[in-house]
Amino acid sequence: MGEKKGVLIVVSGFSGAGKGTLMKCLTEKYENYALSISATTRSPRPGEEEGREYFFRTTEEFEKMIAEDQLIEYARYVNNYYGTPKQYVLECLEKGKDVLLEIEIQGALKVKEKYPDALLLFVTPPDAGELKKRLVSRGTETAEVIASRLMRASEEAQGMDCYDYLVINDDLQACVEEVHRIIRSEHCRMGRNREFVVRIQSELEMNK
Amino acid sequence: MGEKKGVLIVVSGFSGAGKGTLMKCLTEKYENYALSISATTRSPRPGEEEGREYFFRTTEEFEKMIAEDQLIEYARYVNNYYGTPKQYVLECLEKGKDVLLEIEIQGALKVKEKYPDALLLFVTPPDAGELKKRLVSRGTETAEVIASRLMRASEEAQGMDCYDYLVINDDLQACVEEVHRIIRSEHCRMGRNREFVVRIQSELEMNK
Repeated sequence: MGEKKGVLIVVSGFSGAGKGTLMKCLTEKYENYALSISATTRSPRPGEEEGREYFFRTTEEFEKMIAEDQLIEYARYVNNYYGTPKQYVLECLEKGKDVLLEIEIQGALKVKEKYPDALLLFVTPPDAGELKKRLVSRGTETAEVIASRLMRASEEAQGMDCYDYLVINDDLQACVEEVHRIIRSEHCRMGRNREFVVRIQSELEMNK
Repeated sequence: MGEKKGVLIVVSGFSGAGKGTLMKCLTEKYENYALSISATTRSPRPGEEEGREYFFRTTEEFEKMIAEDQLIEYARYVNNYYGTPKQYVLECLEKGKDVLLEIEIQGALKVKEKYPDALLLFVTPPDAGELKKRLVSRGTETAEVIASRLMRASEEAQGMDCYDYLVINDDLQACVEEVHRIIRSEHCRMGRNREFVVRIQSELEMNK
């Protein structure tokens, strides 16, 4: 059947939905995943390592990457650039790895536009009350930050319809399995099996 | 979230692909499935029971069902009608059951037209050689019948692209799991979770 390419998966969701933990568990439990690493111009925080959390770049370097079309998508927040370097993602896909990108909705839509085969997953807690509870129980955020995250969540919720799948993160392990199932199933999509179809069509033609 | 409706699944594939066994295993192993039973005007064969293999109907009765729009799809082969009664299927879907229809490609396309949410699965052996081997090893078919089935398979292969998923039936148990996975994932499709989306959008709106 030839080597099959991996699936490009975009994971978005409300802050507090548990995307980070979900993706960590997924990549630890199963071998077929690669996590895309973003590039950014913001300074490393204590404990962050080059090439692990982010590729840290100067504004000049980042703008060169933009100019040379080396990014799948990028955005600017609060005077810093954030983006997804193309090369690593495409290499992983070629090797048959399923590549996970964690990006917000605007970036997700840009990825879908450039790569219509990308699978868009939206992760959400079971309800808004639970979302609020999770944000509060972190204990690290001020009431103001929590309010602004909930405000942001309300805006983001308007874009949920653009996603292919809805993943309700109630129980983490069940959620990991669900996402894994969705991605495995995606490999069976007819459009991803063109080679197989062409081969069996011609075999049957010769058999006539 | 309210009661979720079931998924309507159309299973097609080459004669010899093992669709029947696959669906039998699936419904025996998991409780969420209902098998649609076709109506036909052909006579019962020894061992066949009314309401188990088929609903046996007179031509007059069948044509009344057509006239009264009681069939999801129907076709005529060799002077006999075959069709899918609508009521049973819709009742099962309402109850949240995932309903399996085994029909050939023309019928599958008619179902998709009427029910765009229907999930179309195409089951195939790993290659044409294996298909031939399976048809021969049944030992019940004449060389002529085998040749005509292979001829038919070659025609059917031309329509594979219309299906949503390709299911390669190499190992039966693996295949049962794969189909089950595809159908479970389908429940997470954004379009099938409209109620949830509307609810969380309004909850977040109130939270602002």
